[in-house]
Amino acid sequence: MIKTDILIIGAGPTGLFTVFEAGLLKLKCHLIDALPQPGGQCSEIYPKKPIYDIPGFPEILAGQLTDNLLEQCKQFQPGFTLGERAETIDKQEDGSFIVTTNKGTKHHAPIVAIAGGLGSFEPRKPPIPNIGDFEDKGVEYIIRDPEVYRDKKVVIAGGGDSALDWSIFLTDVASSVTLVHRRNEFRGALDSVDKVQELKDAGKINLITPAEVKGIEGDDKVTGVSIVQNGEDAFILETDHFIPLFGLSPKLGPIANWGLEIEKNAIKVDNTLDYQTNIPGIFAIGDVNTYPGKLKLILCGFHEATLMCQSAYKIIHPDKKYVMKYTTVGGVEGFDGTKKEAPKAVVKKIE
Amino acid sequence: MIKTDILIIGAGPTGLFTVFEAGLLKLKCHLIDALPQPGGQCSEIYPKKPIYDIPGFPEILAGQLTDNLLEQCKQFQPGFTLGERAETIDKQEDGSFIVTTNKGTKHHAPIVAIAGGLGSFEPRKPPIPNIGDFEDKGVEYIIRDPEVYRDKKVVIAGGGDSALDWSIFLTDVASSVTLVHRRNEFRGALDSVDKVQELKDAGKINLITPAEVKGIEGDDKVTGVSIVQNGEDAFILETDHFIPLFGLSPKLGPIANWGLEIEKNAIKVDNTLDYQTNIPGIFAIGDVNTYPGKLKLILCGFHEATLMCQSAYKIIHPDKKYVMKYTTVGGVEGFDGTKKEAPKAVVKKIE
Ligand SMILES: Cc1cc2nc3c(=O)[nH]c(=O)nc-3n(C[C@H](O)[C@H](O)[C@H](O)COP(=O)(O)OP(=O)(O)OC[C@H]3O[C@@H](n4cnc5c(N)ncnc54)[C@H](O)[C@@H]3O)c2cc1C
Ligand SMILES: Cc1cc2nc3c(=O)[nH]c(=O)nc-3n(C[C@H](O)[C@H](O)[C@H](O)COP(=O)(O)OP(=O)(O)OC[C@H]3O[C@@H](n4cnc5c(N)ncnc54)[C@H](O)[C@@H]3O)c2cc1C
Repeated sequence: MIKTDILIIGAGPTGLFTVFEAGLLKLKCHLIDALPQPGGQCSEIYPKKPIYDIPGFPEILAGQLTDNLLEQCKQFQPGFTLGERAETIDKQEDGSFIVTTNKGTKHHAPIVAIAGGLGSFEPRKPPIPNIGDFEDKGVEYIIRDPEVYRDKKVVIAGGGDSALDWSIFLTDVASSVTLVHRRNEFRGALDSVDKVQELKDAGKINLITPAEVKGIEGDDKVTGVSIVQNGEDAFILETDHFIPLFGLSPKLGPIANWGLEIEKNAIKVDNTLDYQTNIPGIFAIGDVNTYPGKLKLILCGFHEATLMCQSAYKIIHPDKKYVMKYTTVGGVEGFDGTKKEAPKAVVKKIE
Repeated sequence: MIKTDILIIGAGPTGLFTVFEAGLLKLKCHLIDALPQPGGQCSEIYPKKPIYDIPGFPEILAGQLTDNLLEQCKQFQPGFTLGERAETIDKQEDGSFIVTTNKGTKHHAPIVAIAGGLGSFEPRKPPIPNIGDFEDKGVEYIIRDPEVYRDKKVVIAGGGDSALDWSIFLTDVASSVTLVHRRNEFRGALDSVDKVQELKDAGKINLITPAEVKGIEGDDKVTGVSIVQNGEDAFILETDHFIPLFGLSPKLGPIANWGLEIEKNAIKVDNTLDYQTNIPGIFAIGDVNTYPGKLKLILCGFHEATLMCQSAYKIIHPDKKYVMKYTTVGGVEGFDGTKKEAPKAVVKKIE
């Protein structure tokens, strides 16, 4: 059982900044995310695109923002349960919560902060009848650890940035990389398209277009895929892995059944104070919540997280009074023993 | 008469970010500030100190944050009335407002956003009986334009960062710089104290300590100051300018008499929607407002400004419906003809 002060569901920008604000109040955080990496929409959908409305950044790449937020909260040593979806929540007699993931991992905390964005990112699966039988047995919809593919034969399907970028990346890892796409045209960053052309010309990517994977071969694990190219007869290509990268789409999913008030596919919160939901002790912050005037913007999630942490503190420490200190004045003391602080002014004689 | 869409009182971080958010909605802004430069507390009180809780910046100097915010809103060409205090407000029959400064400058706008922080920064004045007679006649409490002192004799009083830093700066501008302080010890950044010591040793700063300026000489303008050093008899030092730099302290000031609901020296707003005050069309955002759970943090001002702009838009364009577009997706079109936008994805054949 993982224990923490604030259990954060969703490691997008809102969840990550919560770790920092909680840390200032000496509260520990643990994050659960269905994705294999933190950053939420920023890292899953548009890591290489610029955002222009993060205050103080005339321009920042979404991936860079994620890195910065990770760096900013590092001192507070957040725990992570990645690649798992928060599935059920059970309120304990003492008012605390146990949250269990689809893989059975249990988390216990007095406060739950749902920073689930548009929902848990779930892969779009191709309509291959027997694909379900091979999930995690050679079929993966998300690449968690590229080392899994070291010296293996890999077939990737898809025509967008993920398919292009992972094909490029895996040429250095896998023993062979095949890219299957139902059109001849790919849609992505110019760089990536050109790079795939180059690797194809060099014989490092085996390109099959226009084509679709129609079936999977194997007993207990993938040994090949059957491909239909140009509407002709299917042929079998031997492979150890089949990775369909057709994008992930967010689904509010299990959270919708937690007894929370839902409106417009989002969780209703009390914006007059602290973004608490109808269940005391459960807060909803960032894109996942709704209230009058709500804007689904990153900068709003930051504010909501900050106010929420104040209320979390009061619930966890009903007897203590927290006096806010500016970070500039008080510095930032990490749980890892590090301290950031402004250079002190000196009082010194001039003679 | 200066005309604009949103008249912002206070050019601190909140006011500056308002320009950007308003600009995304194609609304123009003009800012009034009592200080000679934008940045509010960040530039007046702690420009060289690090802030650790601006989301996405593990550390940023307050002065750098100001520069970044100026850069971010530059595309939207804000107007500035600097060095003037907003003094009175008059509601017009059509619901718009005319705001007049202490120097008589008039501004007309349908929306007023008060981003006045802790109030208008007013100098702490030394207790010299006739000092009022010489204000702007050789006595200045704030240095607006250093060129005024070119080849002039200058006496600065004070023992903190401002006194140290301006003494250093003006050695290259003025014909002579004298620094008077009532103690031998100065309080400031180590660098600055050491630099003043060095310039004193080199004969470039004339240091008089422990001493106080007790009187000002001159008819229609300053010609000298009388100084008491070490408790001995006063002596007269010839000078063209006397600049007491004893810090600025913010005073809510005239805004307190505008008919707004005031609580704890701040303006009460409706945080359930858009940070509007009790007077429709007047909003209060950032440190200057108060509501249940309010935190006087920079990141909160950013959120408040953003929500406020949505309501401003609805008041200005009652018939139009604004559909929010992510900056990443829609880009940012400046009023100056510039456009920022993400590199477009290409659709390209690989063959
Ligand atoms: C193309 C695009 C451009 C954008 N441009 C901008 C912009 O310019 N400016 C701006 O401010 N915003 C922009 N946005 C929106 C911005 O990305 C979101 O506001 C932001 O990501 C919300 O952050 P969040 O942390 O609240 O949620 P998300 O980033 O959505 O993160 C939520 C995380 O929670 C996880 N999760 C949800 N439910 C569960 C569960 N049950 N178990 C486990 N994990 C779960 C999800 O997997 C996800 O990783 C853009 C979005 C897109 C798609
Ligand atoms: C030493 C110090 C350290 C801090 N550290 C942090 C930190 O680490 N993190 C953090 O988030 N915050 C910190 N703060 C607080 C932060 O600086 C404020 O929250 C922020 O400056 C508020 O921004 P604002 O734009 O609302 O107001 P301000 O920055 O106060 O700006 C308001 C401006 O309005 C002007 N004004 C007011 N009334 C009038 C008028 N009638 N006419 C003309 N002009 C007027 C003032 O002159 C001023 O320039 C710190 C503050 C101090 C002093």
